[in-house]
Amino acid sequence: MKKVLGLAEKGRGTTSPNPMVGALVVKNGKIIASAYHRRPGGLHAEAIALKRAGGRAKGAALYVNLEPCPHTGRTPPCTRAIIKSGIKRVYCSMIDPNPLNNGKGKRELEKHGIKVKVGILNKESAELNEVFIKYITKKMPFVTIKAAESLDGKIATKTMDSKWITSEAARDYSHRLRSEMDAILVGVNTITRDNPILTSRRNKTPVKIVLDSGLRVPEGAKIFSKESPGLNIVAILRKSLKEPHILKKVERFNKRGILVIACPDKNNRINLEWLLKELAELEISRLLVEGGGDTISGFLEQGFADKVLFFIAPKIIGGRGAVTSVEGKGAEKVSQAVNLKNVKVEMIGTDILVSGAVVS
Amino acid sequence: MKKVLGLAEKGRGTTSPNPMVGALVVKNGKIIASAYHRRPGGLHAEAIALKRAGGRAKGAALYVNLEPCPHTGRTPPCTRAIIKSGIKRVYCSMIDPNPLNNGKGKRELEKHGIKVKVGILNKESAELNEVFIKYITKKMPFVTIKAAESLDGKIATKTMDSKWITSEAARDYSHRLRSEMDAILVGVNTITRDNPILTSRRNKTPVKIVLDSGLRVPEGAKIFSKESPGLNIVAILRKSLKEPHILKKVERFNKRGILVIACPDKNNRINLEWLLKELAELEISRLLVEGGGDTISGFLEQGFADKVLFFIAPKIIGGRGAVTSVEGKGAEKVSQAVNLKNVKVEMIGTDILVSGAVVS
Repeated sequence: MKKVLGLAEKGRGTTSPNPMVGALVVKNGKIIASAYHRRPGGLHAEAIALKRAGGRAKGAALYVNLEPCPHTGRTPPCTRAIIKSGIKRVYCSMIDPNPLNNGKGKRELEKHGIKVKVGILNKESAELNEVFIKYITKKMPFVTIKAAESLDGKIATKTMDSKWITSEAARDYSHRLRSEMDAILVGVNTITRDNPILTSRRNKTPVKIVLDSGLRVPEGAKIFSKESPGLNIVAILRKSLKEPHILKKVERFNKRGILVIACPDKNNRINLEWLLKELAELEISRLLVEGGGDTISGFLEQGFADKVLFFIAPKIIGGRGAVTSVEGKGAEKVSQAVNLKNVKVEMIGTDILVSGAVVS
Repeated sequence: MKKVLGLAEKGRGTTSPNPMVGALVVKNGKIIASAYHRRPGGLHAEAIALKRAGGRAKGAALYVNLEPCPHTGRTPPCTRAIIKSGIKRVYCSMIDPNPLNNGKGKRELEKHGIKVKVGILNKESAELNEVFIKYITKKMPFVTIKAAESLDGKIATKTMDSKWITSEAARDYSHRLRSEMDAILVGVNTITRDNPILTSRRNKTPVKIVLDSGLRVPEGAKIFSKESPGLNIVAILRKSLKEPHILKKVERFNKRGILVIACPDKNNRINLEWLLKELAELEISRLLVEGGGDTISGFLEQGFADKVLFFIAPKIIGGRGAVTSVEGKGAEKVSQAVNLKNVKVEMIGTDILVSGAVVS
């Protein structure tokens, strides 16, 4: 099954919003065919592996990390292919959390006399497809928070200088991370302060989203220029459309192909739950929130962050007036802080990368 | 020589203000005696090892991590013992930085026909005795900064709650660290805010020092109580003695055996250079600065921090109004931040410990 997860992993960055799936056909202790899912619309891993095995699949066992689907989606049901092939046993890591399946595939196979064993490397498999699981069950993107700070938690000096806190290696890692995402989100202050281009230095540029209640983003910002390809979305507060100059700005944005999403509010700020559901409708399943401190705290405080990645540079900026990585209101008591689990620590160049899943 | 450093290390926490030294007597490829320096006033490592080797030292080689001393201090000169013993060769890691020696020992041995080779594991040896080197050459204690913060750099919430950010394992590690120090220093705000006892949970309690320009420390603070044994020092600004009520408070402190040191100022704050030299006079060679944010920044900004230890808990406190680990003025530009070298990252329980030497 480890081999299956390794195969599945090959699809990282291209299967979204589908899960990463690998499949092996095994007969008399020998692998006779293997495959992984590459992209939405392409055949599922099981279907490709069975096709490759052909007649030899008769009496063999199928190993797959996710329960085979019994329904027709962009491709025909995998259960039908399995039944037809003569496979005798199916080993899978987890039941498909997709409400369209969720145990139906297993029952369908069992009805046809195929033995199905579920649960091998279940935890690893759930971690591999954490994005898909969140997206398919909550209809919201999986939200990763990324920050780059000094050892004392600062993302900019008191004079707003922030170039560069982390090393070239860490910044390159961030670009790879962006290329694995469907969209990147920043607060409008990041645009007015740093005017980044938000590309990925890789061939794929994710959708760029600016959180901007009052549509303050400058029309000449670099994200809207030729330097920065790809779709731009600006999320504003619906009620700010009452202002005629904002309405006119929206029209100009629309003409340029910049999508303005007018969101309902929650305590006078953009309702993130509503926005995230809207982004899921656009098939954005992987969202990277890159800052700044207020935007990050918004996601953490409203409970919509799934994972955090903090790059920590071995330097100390100091200063009561400097900007920290997470601002906003903050916890009243230490016991109310956001806790992380599955914490991992690694070195990226000279910087420390701390990652973890948010305990909800 | 690795073995020598391992022997020397056994003296950690008890040799101060002396260096950690190990010694081996080797003859025909066999170790015939070994020793390490235990405490000030006790025999030096070389002297003990030679005593143990006795007549067998004749014609042997001596391995030691620090150049043997040629002068009479609390004990007789080691060079004399080496010459008497009939040792033929001496291998040592580094020249003794003590101005009383600093090459004299080597020359003395060579004058008597003993071959001396210097430099084996020089870097490791310098790191082992970093405290001694600083103390003996600058006449100031080696200053270690310790902070315990959340992943976003906070040491307390906006309501000043700070119990507990790090885990029991990290706090226990801190207690061990305290027991290896000659003194612990905190700012007066830490006393008024947290009222800690500042003991080490070990049998040895270091000297406790409060940085307190205006002598605001409460007379009923726990550090002055029976709960907290050991000497207390309060460092105040000399000019605040003009206030009659402060003068009276000093007199009461003196009667209780609390040492008040009246310091000259530098930009209206306590002149740390002056204070550190004063502490060195009291044979304090290892000083741990535990906070809070303003005290730590004072040492970093005035350039008197040698090493930092940051415990980072896997939780996020957030809040514009929360307290960060390093405050004060802070750097204007990222390029002016305090940089660290020899950075090490390890897990202490569930927390991350980042340590490094301050680049001066």
